[in-house]
Parts: sequence; structure tokens; C-alpha cells
Amino acid sequence: MDASIIAVGSEMLGSERLDTNSLYLTDHLNALGVEVICKLIVGDHRGRLVEAMRYTLDRAPILIMSGGLGPTEDDLTRDAVAELVGRPLVFCEEVCAAIEERFRRMRRTMAEVNRRQAYVVDGAAVLANARGTAPGQWLEWNGSHIVLLPGPPHELKDMFEAQCLARLRHIVPPLVIRRRFYRVAGMGESDLDQLIAPVYKKYTNPVTTILAAAGDIQIHLRARCQMPEEAEALLSEVARPITELLGDRIYTDTGEPLEATVGAMLARRGLTVAVAESCTGGMLAERITSVAGASEYFLGGFLVYTYAAKIALLGIDPALLESQRAASEPVARAMAEAARRKTGASLAVSVTGVAGPSQGEETEPVGAIFIGLADESGSAARRFHFAGDRDRIRTLATQTALDLLRRRLMAT
Amino acid sequence: MDASIIAVGSEMLGSERLDTNSLYLTDHLNALGVEVICKLIVGDHRGRLVEAMRYTLDRAPILIMSGGLGPTEDDLTRDAVAELVGRPLVFCEEVCAAIEERFRRMRRTMAEVNRRQAYVVDGAAVLANARGTAPGQWLEWNGSHIVLLPGPPHELKDMFEAQCLARLRHIVPPLVIRRRFYRVAGMGESDLDQLIAPVYKKYTNPVTTILAAAGDIQIHLRARCQMPEEAEALLSEVARPITELLGDRIYTDTGEPLEATVGAMLARRGLTVAVAESCTGGMLAERITSVAGASEYFLGGFLVYTYAAKIALLGIDPALLESQRAASEPVARAMAEAARRKTGASLAVSVTGVAGPSQGEETEPVGAIFIGLADESGSAARRFHFAGDRDRIRTLATQTALDLLRRRLMAT
Repeated sequence: MDASIIAVGSEMLGSERLDTNSLYLTDHLNALGVEVICKLIVGDHRGRLVEAMRYTLDRAPILIMSGGLGPTEDDLTRDAVAELVGRPLVFCEEVCAAIEERFRRMRRTMAEVNRRQAYVVDGAAVLANARGTAPGQWLEWNGSHIVLLPGPPHELKDMFEAQCLARLRHIVPPLVIRRRFYRVAGMGESDLDQLIAPVYKKYTNPVTTILAAAGDIQIHLRARCQMPEEAEALLSEVARPITELLGDRIYTDTGEPLEATVGAMLARRGLTVAVAESCTGGMLAERITSVAGASEYFLGGFLVYTYAAKIALLGIDPALLESQRAASEPVARAMAEAARRKTGASLAVSVTGVAGPSQGEETEPVGAIFIGLADESGSAARRFHFAGDRDRIRTLATQTALDLLRRRLMAT
Repeated sequence: MDASIIAVGSEMLGSERLDTNSLYLTDHLNALGVEVICKLIVGDHRGRLVEAMRYTLDRAPILIMSGGLGPTEDDLTRDAVAELVGRPLVFCEEVCAAIEERFRRMRRTMAEVNRRQAYVVDGAAVLANARGTAPGQWLEWNGSHIVLLPGPPHELKDMFEAQCLARLRHIVPPLVIRRRFYRVAGMGESDLDQLIAPVYKKYTNPVTTILAAAGDIQIHLRARCQMPEEAEALLSEVARPITELLGDRIYTDTGEPLEATVGAMLARRGLTVAVAESCTGGMLAERITSVAGASEYFLGGFLVYTYAAKIALLGIDPALLESQRAASEPVARAMAEAARRKTGASLAVSVTGVAGPSQGEETEPVGAIFIGLADESGSAARRFHFAGDRDRIRTLATQTALDLLRRRLMAT
């Protein structure tokens, strides 16, 4: 069964914004055995929207649209669908009440414009929006299915998972899809591919996809079969050699991010952690605390971006800073030791280095990062050199610090 | 004059790969006064390509296609264009010689399949490829212009700049595009729209686009005119009332993020700042330090995620925490005061509250956030209530803390 996707919004016809919702939607559609045959990006223009919908519906019986459901006058998706199918928009009291209730919960009053969002194409099912004001709609028309979803990704994802997947399963002929999903830290993409390509290249089912972000690689395996047992067997056949080749560079097979793996390891061992961050300026702690329940093991941290802060907040010896500079192994060790001592954590991690764009007062070049680790037996630090801009260097430093912590915990 | 863009390639209909060439192309087209009215992504399928081309050419006289010019059998753009316009593909000796020469320079022999790339739609101009084997083509047909470019971004960009820009300037009536760009904090999208829609709705030129992220709204105005003065005058006509209505809720007209605005304000005033973060766990400091040169004004911070850390690192009175709970105005004030005192900063900002998903030991509900601000004259704190998941609540809290800091600095 085929589908098409229309992303609605003039901002996505400019030079800055891409439609990324379609990647998420495609992933789920493919998992159901539905192929996406065409994607369109159309501006907030009623006539063009109607034409685009007609074009896609002539070619695929499922049309998923994202965006254009907001409260403002340039949100025209509702009107365009009503025009296409030749049905009126009807005001839905319950939808309006739900929007009003949402505002009330936030101690605000609903603006008059939000009433626009309570209009539904006659005959469409309303898809409640748990995360925003714009309800979605699901409309059957001439044997086709037209699904309207809000543009903001978190609203769209929530609505799609809660209310569209089950509906789609009803209309799509059953094929089972089974997946494996691994995440790998501490390895570059081309090195990883060179290592495992000889394994996965032999198979077209399962499909193997490798996605690389800074310091973090995801490996997806997806098998599509008639029977679940068959899919699982195929997956195991490919996954076994891959996991053997990668060993402990795989940090999870559940898809969770590295900070969640590390958090679970700390919690399981009853250990606690603290941080001292210089160049990453809070990014490491932000990731650690992005995991719900982090208060169980995260005892706190110090943001010591300047020489003065390293001295005042952590008590780093000014003479050490002067002789070694902040971007150095001894300072990384001293930072980790001080953070551990001051918080009473079992372990402390420190990051200091040169994120750029300028070298500042350091002797080390841009990209040189020192990561320190302190525990009850003492401390150690390692030097890394990362390439890229400021954001990428900070991201790689944070990811590497988390991975060093993971490896330290594996040995515990 | 209008254009459309078709990105060709089945890989862009999967769940991982986006077409990014269109951003680059749109930027250049807009600069010439050409509007992109529609973007399509189509797989390597001859029939669908022909249909997509027909659809776009019915709507805009310029069609730019990227991809599908490679040497393999699933590279079908050439064939699809030939079918659409009803002309043969002709073998071009010079193109073939150029491809062979390219292989020779790399000390390789041209594969037989590469001969496919020497076929040109009868009557098309060949666009030489300085960076790859696939030549581009430029075809005039029925008053339209069809431009075929290679998919790899570096090949496409090189070819477009060297050989397409000048051609486009010949066919496009001279029009200039001028823009204004504002960013707004501390306001919801629907409230903002209700306020300014009566202004911008009166104009179709300039076009106004509103983009909302968590706690951050972007307003784009774009005017297309024959003369630059006319475009600027139109922009001013719309921008003046909008900026008057929004007043100091506009934090920048240069497009920079809020942390850069705040950083520049601090630097200009010779002031410094420190943070104490509980529920945001480093996100606020991470944003402040994402700006290059932040060490000039960011004196450091404390990540005090737990009750124990608030006591140990900041010296918050345990009795205050016990009686008021961590998510409270008095604790937010005490955190800001302590961070300021311990770092010697001119100002300190604190964030404490309930990011969820659970309420933990707090009496306040999930989403309740207290932001404190301390300066030489004392301290104050405000309660906010944000809706959404943990990440959204943390993001809104961070954005709001930065905006409160900005407002405090405006008054300095």
C-alpha cells in the first residue's frame, strides 16, 4: 500500500527550514509495510494545497499532511481539505472546550483566534492533541484516507503514535516488521562501516541503516516477513556477527541515549556522580539530568568556565592553572577530584579544553579536550582532539565524557 | 517569477535522508526575486518523474531538478525529461570525452556504464560538471526552463553558481528581495498573532511568516519589488507597527538566539552573570556558554539538582528547604543570592521547579518553575507554569530565565 506526505508551511519553502516530520512518519509507515511514493512541500496557500492534495490522492490512497492547523489566518489546511472533498467545516463544541480547558490548566485565557481550531471537516474523526491546541483530523473520502496532523514535531509524534498507528493497522494488509537497534559510542562512522559492511551487505532483508551523529552511531536492522518467527530468525542471523564485531562499543540495544545507559548503570550499582565543566559549560550535566530520576545518582556540579571560577568554586591551585593552563591533564584531574570531594559523589567527571573558535589564553589548539575522572582510588585524565565547530567540539566532548564514565562503570 | 524544485532519489523517500539541496537553491532563487512555490521529492521511477514534472511545470515556469543523473540504471532523470518533452536523447561525443578525460586524470578507466551520462535531451544545453562525471542540462520547452543538476551537493552548488545563475538573471525580470527578521520571547504564538495579524494581513507584499519554537517566536518579513528603495519602504511600513505593538518583547532584529542577545548586553554593560540550576540541570549555562566569548561575562555556576547539593554547594538553609520545598520562591531567591555571592558576579539567575514526569517530593505540580534573580540590590523570584513533557518544560524554563535576565539588563 502506498502513501504520500504533504508538509504544509511557507516557511519550509524558504532557505532555512526543512520538513523533518516526514522522516518520522516514513519510518512508521515503512514499519507497517506502507511505502512513501512522493513527498510535497507546499506553502500556506489554499488553492495550491487543494491541487497538491488532488495530485497525491490520484497516486496513493493514504495522504498524511502535517502543519497548517494552527489558530492563525495563514493556517489553511482545514479549509483546503473542506474545499477538496466538498464538505463544510463544522464547529465542534467538544474540541473548543478541550482547547479552552488546556488554556485554563496553564492559567491563561483562550484567545478568540483559537476557536478556528475547533472547526472540523464534516464527517472527519477528531484526533485529540495531548500536547497542543490543534486537533488532528482523519477523513475517509473516495476510498482514500486523509490524515491531518499538527506541524510541531512533538505534537505530531504523540498524536500519530496514540491515534493513527492503530487506525493504519486496520487498513493495511498485515506484514510483520521486526527490528533490532544498537547504539555505538567511541567510533567513527567510516571505521564502523568498514568493520560491519561485509556482514550486512549480504542481506536485503533485513535492511540495515547506519545513522551517524557526533560521537554516536545508530544501527537499525529491519526485517519484513509474513511470520514473526521468520523475521526474528533473519534478524539474529545478521545481528549476531555485528554485535560480536563491535563488542562493548555497543552501549545499548534498546535505543536509549548514552546518558540513560550511564544513569541506569549508576543506579544499579548504587553509585553517584558529580561533574565539573569548563568548555562544555553545562552540556554534560544537562544530558545527565535529561533522564527522569537523575536525582537518584546525580549529586551536582560546578560550571567553572573561567580561571577565576576554577579557583573560587573548586579551589584549584592558581599556580597549577598558571603553569599548566586550564586545558591540561593536571587541571582536568584536579577539577574531577575537587568536584568529587565537594559533593561526596562516588565518581566525578570533568571536562576542560578549547572549544573555539579562538584559542584564547590556552597553549593547546582548538579542539583539544581533557576529560578527567575521579573515584575513591584516585584520578586520571585523557587528552582528546576533536574536529569541527564550537558546537560539535562541545557535543563530542560531552559524548566522550559520558562514554568514559560508562567504561569506568563497566569495570565496577 | 515562480519556480519549483524536484529532488530525485528513492533514498530521500526513506526515513533517514532529507533533500538539503533545495535550501541552497531557494536561497539563490529568492535572491534573484524568484519564489519557490512547491518542492517535491520523487523516487527513481520514470513514470512518477514525468508526472511530477508535468505537475510543477503547469504551475511555475522554472523547474530545477537535482539527482538521477548518475551512470546506473536507476538514474532516470534524463529519460523522464526526454519522455515529457517528446524529444530523443542524443549521444554527445564531447561530453563522453570529458568524462573519459576525468577518469584518466584520476588514473582510472571509464566504466562502460558511464557512457549513459553522455546522453543529452535533444536541444538541451550541456552544463559541464567540474567536480563529477554527471553533466547538467538546461532545456527550454513550451516557454518553461527545465534545469537538471547532479545530486551531490558540492557538484550541484559548483554547477549552479558557475553556469545557472547568469542564465537565470537573463530570464528573470529584475526584482529585488529584502527581508526583516525579528525574534520574540515571553509570548505565546496565538497571543502574538492576535496582536499583529491585523497589521500584516493587509499585505501580500511583504510576505509575513511566523515560526514558533518553545518560548521563542521568529517573524520573517520578505518584500519583492523592482527597486530596493521600494522594498525597504514596504518593509518599514509593515515593520513599524509590528515592532511598536511588540515593543521590548522583540529581543533581536538580527536573527541571533536569545543567549547571544543577553551575552552582548552583559558585555556592553561590563556586567557578569552566574547561575544556579536545579531542574534545568545545566541547560541554562549550556546556552549561555554556547556563545563564543562567553568567558568574558559568565563567571560560573552550580548544578544543584538535589536537596543535598543545594545545601552543600550553595549553603541553602536546610530548614528553608524543609519548610518551603525546593520548588518555591524563597529557595529560588536563596539559590540566586548564593550563586552571586560565591562567584562575585554582578547578577545571578536561578531555576528550580518540577520538570516531571513525576512530582517527586515537591508540593508544586509538574510544570511549576521558579526563576530567581539576584543583583546588588537584592533578589526576587517568579513562579511560572509550563505545559509539556520534561524536555519542553526544561526548555521553556531556560528560555524564560534568559528573557528575565534580558529584561533586568534593559533596565540597567
